[in-house]
Amino acid sequence: MKKYIGVDVGGMSIKAAVVTEDGQMLSKYSCPTQTDKPYTVMTENIYNLCLSILTDADLKKEDIQGVGIGCPGTIWREKGIITFANNLDFYNVPLVKEFKKYWNINIQIENDANCAALGENKFGSGKGYKDCVFITLGTGVGTGFIVDGKLFTGRRGAGAEAGHMVIRIDGEKCTCGRRGCWEAYASASALIRETQKAMQKNPDTIMHKIAQEHGKVSGRTAFEASKQNDPEGKRIVKRYVKYIACGVVNLINIFRPEVVIIGGGVSNEGQYFIDMIQRYVNRYHYGKKLNPKAKVVRASLLNDAGILGAASLVME
Amino acid sequence: MKKYIGVDVGGMSIKAAVVTEDGQMLSKYSCPTQTDKPYTVMTENIYNLCLSILTDADLKKEDIQGVGIGCPGTIWREKGIITFANNLDFYNVPLVKEFKKYWNINIQIENDANCAALGENKFGSGKGYKDCVFITLGTGVGTGFIVDGKLFTGRRGAGAEAGHMVIRIDGEKCTCGRRGCWEAYASASALIRETQKAMQKNPDTIMHKIAQEHGKVSGRTAFEASKQNDPEGKRIVKRYVKYIACGVVNLINIFRPEVVIIGGGVSNEGQYFIDMIQRYVNRYHYGKKLNPKAKVVRASLLNDAGILGAASLVME
Repeated sequence: MKKYIGVDVGGMSIKAAVVTEDGQMLSKYSCPTQTDKPYTVMTENIYNLCLSILTDADLKKEDIQGVGIGCPGTIWREKGIITFANNLDFYNVPLVKEFKKYWNINIQIENDANCAALGENKFGSGKGYKDCVFITLGTGVGTGFIVDGKLFTGRRGAGAEAGHMVIRIDGEKCTCGRRGCWEAYASASALIRETQKAMQKNPDTIMHKIAQEHGKVSGRTAFEASKQNDPEGKRIVKRYVKYIACGVVNLINIFRPEVVIIGGGVSNEGQYFIDMIQRYVNRYHYGKKLNPKAKVVRASLLNDAGILGAASLVME
Repeated sequence: MKKYIGVDVGGMSIKAAVVTEDGQMLSKYSCPTQTDKPYTVMTENIYNLCLSILTDADLKKEDIQGVGIGCPGTIWREKGIITFANNLDFYNVPLVKEFKKYWNINIQIENDANCAALGENKFGSGKGYKDCVFITLGTGVGTGFIVDGKLFTGRRGAGAEAGHMVIRIDGEKCTCGRRGCWEAYASASALIRETQKAMQKNPDTIMHKIAQEHGKVSGRTAFEASKQNDPEGKRIVKRYVKYIACGVVNLINIFRPEVVIIGGGVSNEGQYFIDMIQRYVNRYHYGKKLNPKAKVVRASLLNDAGILGAASLVME
């Protein structure tokens, strides 16, 4: 069976695995990202990670058909360049060219959320669908789009940034410089911000106790309180789902996908959370019963979507 | 030179013209839409319109390579079906099949805003660009997208409805059933609504005089007042431009086009209006100077974009 390497560069760590053509991971390693170092160091780290997983899987470089790398920021895949990545402080970084100094192999790079979308489309919840919207709810809101079976990235890979679609003009500040972006309302960070606000206002809410038990206010605090029938917790969850669904419906009206795949830590809340989004979608998508319906599903590959999608960049 | 027929079905009238392969219109006729009649009547009307323009241009049916029809609503082009069109009260109408009863020719149908986008891309302001966002500001907000040289419609032609992207959650009511859609803020109708509101609040504004001179409050009232330095007029125009630009930036962050083409009656305000949108775009698009810039331009074909784009559906 053909073998590839998928690499997922995150803000904290770089993960890599040998991936077979049917989406099995044979070996998986990670190392710290070292965001304070130049891209030449990161490239060398990625190469060393590749060597480690090859050794671990008892494989040679010759056994590998290609290396795919997912990376945060704007990636110009055709040129093999990271146009810019704020977290990594990278600007016009020729990653592919640099990597080829170590290993002259078929290598492709792509944005990390786009890779996760590809991964879910090829091996996860989006399998068998030609039109998918993928959304990951984490520190930010990442989006990836599969249109007619192909990854849609916008020109020069600089689109598909629907986290930075304003859903409340003049609203909360976003890291991108605008106000009211979807990310500023639908990310886990936004949920935590709203939970904290509500806790400050309401000394009586059960959320104080829940946060204490967990050692901190997290994206789960309001969900847990809601399950225990706390009115404040319920209010926050209801509003948070509305914010998520608002952006989801916007994207359905533009892309009209078969499935909307929800990933990221918050998606662990499970099916009832997905169902809440689905109900909102059914009610508000453009054309209602007359237009094709989009099914909301939970991502299934979780943290491996990025690696598997990165590997799929180099599978034909 | 090869010749085609382009048909533009509007809420009020149906327009049709013979169009040459280089975008010249040889003859142009129109007739009322008769929205109270079934689709069979409309199809016959379109056919008769075709015969009229052929006679006028001294041509025979055999001289025509194909007929393209632009129509409001959700159009499933591959199936030749109008999935639904609210204005026309059409649901799953097999327009192509019906038309072929009269004239068995190469015929294609597509959404009207998508046709206008195609028209501007092939013969107008978007000529030579492979990635365009087209926006028409009228009674509603219509959008069309050219992605890598091809029309992007979403699955089954049921996407590309960015007028129904919420930019202010819980905001103004929209005809689609949601609240806060871009259309409810950036359409000419929204501008008129805001102008009227401001006039009711401010008996002193010069807008009363301007509206009286024109016989009504229109999309031009606030713009004229603004030019005459009326503070209320300036405030409305500034805010209206901000609403338009908010949606434009959202779409740039998703599609990252080379050009954003602004059409519809409001675009007649001219270059200073376009420049206001451009400044907002330059300031707020994702990635600022690091991502490719999008140029905002005025549509150049005006009311003919739909006919020319419809004709281009049947040009290879």
